[in-house]
Amino acid sequence: MIMSKPLILVTNDDGITSKGINELIDAVLPIGDVVVFAPDGPRSGMSNAITVNTPLRYKLLEQRDGLVRYSCNGTPTDCVKLALHTGILPRKPDILLSGINHGSNAAINVIYSGTMGAAFEGCENSIPSVGLSLADYDENLDFQYFKPYIVKIVNEVLKRGLPRAVCLNVNAPVGEIKGLKIKRQAWGYWTDEFEQRTDPNGQTYFWMAGYFKNEEPADHETDEWALANGYISIVPSIIDLTAHEFVNEMKTWNLF
Amino acid sequence: MIMSKPLILVTNDDGITSKGINELIDAVLPIGDVVVFAPDGPRSGMSNAITVNTPLRYKLLEQRDGLVRYSCNGTPTDCVKLALHTGILPRKPDILLSGINHGSNAAINVIYSGTMGAAFEGCENSIPSVGLSLADYDENLDFQYFKPYIVKIVNEVLKRGLPRAVCLNVNAPVGEIKGLKIKRQAWGYWTDEFEQRTDPNGQTYFWMAGYFKNEEPADHETDEWALANGYISIVPSIIDLTAHEFVNEMKTWNLF
Repeated sequence: MIMSKPLILVTNDDGITSKGINELIDAVLPIGDVVVFAPDGPRSGMSNAITVNTPLRYKLLEQRDGLVRYSCNGTPTDCVKLALHTGILPRKPDILLSGINHGSNAAINVIYSGTMGAAFEGCENSIPSVGLSLADYDENLDFQYFKPYIVKIVNEVLKRGLPRAVCLNVNAPVGEIKGLKIKRQAWGYWTDEFEQRTDPNGQTYFWMAGYFKNEEPADHETDEWALANGYISIVPSIIDLTAHEFVNEMKTWNLF
Repeated sequence: MIMSKPLILVTNDDGITSKGINELIDAVLPIGDVVVFAPDGPRSGMSNAITVNTPLRYKLLEQRDGLVRYSCNGTPTDCVKLALHTGILPRKPDILLSGINHGSNAAINVIYSGTMGAAFEGCENSIPSVGLSLADYDENLDFQYFKPYIVKIVNEVLKRGLPRAVCLNVNAPVGEIKGLKIKRQAWGYWTDEFEQRTDPNGQTYFWMAGYFKNEEPADHETDEWALANGYISIVPSIIDLTAHEFVNEMKTWNLF
């Protein structure tokens, strides 16, 4: 019996020319047939945004044995939707990989992340989906320590699949890696979020800035703890946002 | 003892001139002091997107007894961040209200919604936050049946607060309303998502379109069921996306 190779859909939010996505392609080309469908430029912080008011376009950039590449003018989520629903794929992908993002998407960053937005979109389409991030914004990040772990994670997800509505948020620390931990999303918040400036016309404007403050630094069960201690963190993340534990309590409210 | 009135922060994703936000302001002005900080135009489908690569600006439009209004060039999430972190508020709001959206944000739409993005941002800042949507896209929707329920919900949330990381996704059906139900997010998917066209230069482009397909139409516990049967649906929604039930199972994977 001849088994066909797994079909791997790759996207990201830093854009198709970023180092991260090309390192990811390099890591997984030996595993399967790779279709890249990624934004034509940076789309960081785009979350699950979709483009409803302007037309979407995409372009075939390259087609060779085992690798096809498209760029698109939309968001990461648009990219996944277009790749899945405009007939460019021979069949439903066996896995969706988003990244490797330049910068952490641990803790609350998961909700702002375009990388994870694409993973959620794959998940919503019942494709086992994995967001991959390295915790530094440097354009020339060194991905060598992360790549063997990515291969391991991809092979395991291809073998086992993932539950409905669940995808993986994988974040790696910079430099050498001690191992891999399954964790939960840390609670924290962003602080000092804006830098105020004055433009040449005397008008005020703001740049988004700031840093993330972990409110649970001592808790070993969080993704932030894993990263701070040299481990890759995997948080299985769910797109059923229902706060199930609170549903019954709310039924006792004075609303009815 | 003189109690100060509650401070209510209002935003949306349809923009500050939409009918929905103005009906919301009208509904809650009797309850508290209202600060509106909303996008200067439509930002539908912006999810939790944040603006990281271009400058943000906002403008004071109106200031009168009990009501202040600002417009902003950013996303709904940017609006909440700017309102909270650039010193325009006298204190932390007692509640954040986002809407009233023209169109449903039930089921999976919660992850694409700019309305809910703003609510998640309030929630992340530990403010009791409520996203409000009416299940029709018409610009001239009739909000009269929904408004008394909004007053009830707002008063109850002001009295009780909400648990950490939990906010409310409130969706109302069009027309007369039978009552209010606490539900969970339905599972389903979007289908026929793109309409393909050819521009005057012969180039292909795509408009996002399609419709939501509920995969659990018979399940009475879902938000879609409530809406389809004339009830307002409230889904308590959580921004800790960890799939807690799957964490332990994943620890048995062959990854370590």
